[in-house]
Amino acid sequence: MTAPSPVLKITIRLYCGEEIAMGPGKADLLDAIAREGSISAAGRAMAMSYRRSWLLVDAMNRCWREPLVATRPGGAKSGGAEVTAFGRAVLENYRALQAMTDDVRASPCWAQLSDAILPAAREHQ
Amino acid sequence: MTAPSPVLKITIRLYCGEEIAMGPGKADLLDAIAREGSISAAGRAMAMSYRRSWLLVDAMNRCWREPLVATRPGGAKSGGAEVTAFGRAVLENYRALQAMTDDVRASPCWAQLSDAILPAAREHQ
Repeated sequence: MTAPSPVLKITIRLYCGEEIAMGPGKADLLDAIAREGSISAAGRAMAMSYRRSWLLVDAMNRCWREPLVATRPGGAKSGGAEVTAFGRAVLENYRALQAMTDDVRASPCWAQLSDAILPAAREHQ
Repeated sequence: MTAPSPVLKITIRLYCGEEIAMGPGKADLLDAIAREGSISAAGRAMAMSYRRSWLLVDAMNRCWREPLVATRPGGAKSGGAEVTAFGRAVLENYRALQAMTDDVRASPCWAQLSDAILPAAREHQ
């Protein structure tokens, strides 16, 4: 078994005041809603409670000029949900921002840092 | 009073296994230690408890091939501390990664997203 390699994580969050209008979890949830066709199925696919997935959708729908997710008749839980055209455009732009950070991972600075990080942290002295 | 503008936050974290070897808080703490000359004064300058600042230094010193912070005789609390040459090199490379993300803020994708975020979130319906 080899020690895990150092990892670089770049997180992009867009704020509307104190609320996170878009971030990695919300973007993945939008993808899951588009794929699964409902908020509850999307939440399940992400191992997230229905309450949690609903709160994320609620925050997204309050932060943008138009809703990103539309629910269909039958109620939010039993009926389906879909990502709106507006939501798909937001998601596409957010993914484009994420893709722009790929050059950071390819940079000599990260290569140097990666070499200087231990394979595993030392124990407390 | 005008509504706050949408904000884009890009966070870069370097991991050594489960531990964060470097991130925004640790980088700012290194800068404060270099400026203040001790862990306790750096913590105070960042409105952080001594315990918290010591834990961040301890994590950094366990994650990298060499310590980033060296304490001088007199004990970690009463004696001084300084950022090592190795620590300064790590900090410089980390700041370089952060600077590489400036083009994300200048991108048309962020301009479009920024325009689509409301000045303030709507109330819950």
